[in-house]
Amino acid sequence: MLESVLTHLQAHKQTHIEELKQFLRIPSVSALAQHVPDMARCAEWVAASLREAGLEHVDIMPTDGGHPVVYADWLHAPGKPTVLVYGHYDVQPADPLELWETPPFDPVIKDNKLYARGSTDDKGQVLLYIKVVEAFLKTAGSLPVNVKFCIEGEEEIASKHLPAFIEKHQERLQADTIVLSDTQMQSLGKPALMYGLRGLAGFEITVDGANSDLHSGLFGGAVQNPIHALTKLLSSFHDEEGRVAVKGFYDRVLALSDKERESFKQVAPDENKVRTDLQVSGLYGEQGYSFYEQTTSRPTLEITSVSGGFQGEGIKPIIPNRASAKIACRLVAAQQPEEIMDAVEAHIHAQSFPGVTIQLDRQLYGNPFITPIDEPVMVAAAEAYEATFGEWPVYTRSGGSIPIIEVLGRVLNAPVVLMGFGVPGENLHAPNEHFHLENWDNGTATIARYWDKLSAISFGEKV
Amino acid sequence: MLESVLTHLQAHKQTHIEELKQFLRIPSVSALAQHVPDMARCAEWVAASLREAGLEHVDIMPTDGGHPVVYADWLHAPGKPTVLVYGHYDVQPADPLELWETPPFDPVIKDNKLYARGSTDDKGQVLLYIKVVEAFLKTAGSLPVNVKFCIEGEEEIASKHLPAFIEKHQERLQADTIVLSDTQMQSLGKPALMYGLRGLAGFEITVDGANSDLHSGLFGGAVQNPIHALTKLLSSFHDEEGRVAVKGFYDRVLALSDKERESFKQVAPDENKVRTDLQVSGLYGEQGYSFYEQTTSRPTLEITSVSGGFQGEGIKPIIPNRASAKIACRLVAAQQPEEIMDAVEAHIHAQSFPGVTIQLDRQLYGNPFITPIDEPVMVAAAEAYEATFGEWPVYTRSGGSIPIIEVLGRVLNAPVVLMGFGVPGENLHAPNEHFHLENWDNGTATIARYWDKLSAISFGEKV
Repeated sequence: MLESVLTHLQAHKQTHIEELKQFLRIPSVSALAQHVPDMARCAEWVAASLREAGLEHVDIMPTDGGHPVVYADWLHAPGKPTVLVYGHYDVQPADPLELWETPPFDPVIKDNKLYARGSTDDKGQVLLYIKVVEAFLKTAGSLPVNVKFCIEGEEEIASKHLPAFIEKHQERLQADTIVLSDTQMQSLGKPALMYGLRGLAGFEITVDGANSDLHSGLFGGAVQNPIHALTKLLSSFHDEEGRVAVKGFYDRVLALSDKERESFKQVAPDENKVRTDLQVSGLYGEQGYSFYEQTTSRPTLEITSVSGGFQGEGIKPIIPNRASAKIACRLVAAQQPEEIMDAVEAHIHAQSFPGVTIQLDRQLYGNPFITPIDEPVMVAAAEAYEATFGEWPVYTRSGGSIPIIEVLGRVLNAPVVLMGFGVPGENLHAPNEHFHLENWDNGTATIARYWDKLSAISFGEKV
Repeated sequence: MLESVLTHLQAHKQTHIEELKQFLRIPSVSALAQHVPDMARCAEWVAASLREAGLEHVDIMPTDGGHPVVYADWLHAPGKPTVLVYGHYDVQPADPLELWETPPFDPVIKDNKLYARGSTDDKGQVLLYIKVVEAFLKTAGSLPVNVKFCIEGEEEIASKHLPAFIEKHQERLQADTIVLSDTQMQSLGKPALMYGLRGLAGFEITVDGANSDLHSGLFGGAVQNPIHALTKLLSSFHDEEGRVAVKGFYDRVLALSDKERESFKQVAPDENKVRTDLQVSGLYGEQGYSFYEQTTSRPTLEITSVSGGFQGEGIKPIIPNRASAKIACRLVAAQQPEEIMDAVEAHIHAQSFPGVTIQLDRQLYGNPFITPIDEPVMVAAAEAYEATFGEWPVYTRSGGSIPIIEVLGRVLNAPVVLMGFGVPGENLHAPNEHFHLENWDNGTATIARYWDKLSAISFGEKV
């Protein structure tokens, strides 16, 4: 079955690329109101493509106030696992236009690379999945697994309405595993499985003193200065070794296995190069961990801004009546944002700052995400990559946060596989975005092989 | 001699007040370019008044780019001390005009108070001295001391050009003591001698990290955050008891005598009232000192502003590449601004902040000022007050800074007496500024008595 699928995909490659060009011609910029009609047109296009491929129950489902989600499924593999394909049909704005060498919504192939906004992020990678379904259904008349598609239109605007959508349509979206292709390989020819992302906890701390700014001559030395209290507080958040000094902060952090640490050595950047690129005299962080480990697998508490007193030129000698700071924690599994903010609040209350009041305002949430690399779905994905690329994928983690991935995995209670076919340097979010077309072939082949391998996995009953 | 002087002053009071009104009609606002001609006219008016009083060598002396100084002298008391009268003929802008009950430059007497901009600050108090000279010369034909006048035109704009002027004309201004009336009594009928002012050392600290802001997800935890280093540094400036923790900071601070501490009890504000007025849960400062002592007689290091990271709404999760703070130290005798800034710089360099660079930029200077209360000139001033008001003056110090007073005393190497005839609530720098006319009589009488008493003091040779 698999061989004829791969042959079919090869044989129809040109047609498929032409279809991808159609998809890319629709300027589906979710951030801009002027493109609302294009968004609707693009959802229609995806729906038609899914229908064409042989998927059923194709449905353009509204979100509560946002752009719609395109759903479809094929559920005729009884006893086989169900895989949910997540992707997005919206794209980043194309600005600055003058830096594009060819128009962003007029796809052009140069040197076997397809140039257009959305080519790698994420229309190219979404269409791979649709064409694999089509190939299976046109050649074998069936798929080795049950398949559902959930292609959203707000990924580039932080998936604003998707968490509520997922909660609401939990039953329809139910799957044994989730797969998405919206990340990158290590380099051309070198596949990667990104298996972890950090979460986020963001909050603001405000320190209030007297009812107005005070003359530093007439009151200085006898009234608590909110900046003094704030800097004392902020400096208490880390110990001398760069570790976060908030009690309980590390309680739920998953330790790195030897296997993970070993695999990081293949993907970690050269620390001297990082230092030189940033033009700093030295790197600085939690002792006992490499740069890569610190930035991907360890949690952090970073003060992202601080403000207090007169912000104009020169020195205005006052004691300001207010000072504030904003903090973003990056969290790793299985830390929970609310719990971390509770711990910070307890840390503040354990200290005494006479003469001022301190408030904490919780603002940003995002759970960390991880899929253990020895999960059967991860092993299957690695084998599919190896069969296609002749190379076992490297395991990577990112220090950034894509909260929607964790929501998907958590609400649907299913492991997530990030099967990226992007290549670093393809300018996603930037002018001259492009997609390496050799990864069109590699992508469809890997996905087809992945589904084939998935069909052999037993997921058991959901609890 | 003194009796006939006082009688003369009483007899001519109405004429003198009319002259003061002329003086007040000139809108000599030093801060506004449109009033440059008025400034020149006002200097002429002062010169004419000095000449009229019988003073000699009346001279409108230019400053290097600023408003002129009016100089005059009478030096025919051989073997007697020379007193330099300092004052200013410029006034604050009158805005907001709509809050004045009568026009600011059209003097009006109501309830024995003279309303006009400059009436108490400082034209009224300057004219007292001129009329005392005139009374002596018209009645006795001589003064008990040698007198010099130095009436400047830039006090309300921080005496910008005066330090250079004083240095340049040091010989001409040379005196045994300096007197000025530009401060306030404790209350109506209760004279005060302000004998100390704090100095200033102002500087900015800048912490630089990487060559640009960094994504807190991709770099957070492995690169030194300039805000972290800055808050660590800033929080090291004070110990747990509110004392400045910079080595050597207190080395030159003059200890308070029991006499001073006792006298402060008469003038110190009620601390509960201060707390209630400021709406703070408690006052906070260096242990072992009262609010009044902390704010007038102890040095401070106050962070007046702090800034770093994204200052807009919401949390932008970055590691900023720069953070900075501004600091104003209030100093007390005999601390020196440069030395204090050296100590702060040494404090910074004694610590290690890997991955960032720290710079200190020195910006504000002002020496603290003090005239010991048992100096003969201070005792003479107190006796003159007592003879006029029937009450010994209270001794006050201010936590604020008027650097020019320290410059005068230091360059001329002469003790300074601040003989204030203003009354709290006279709205200096505010709408409806006024001067209590009973202090016209009290002022001239106290000054005449002061010069009489000064004539008995031996200053010896200048070194």
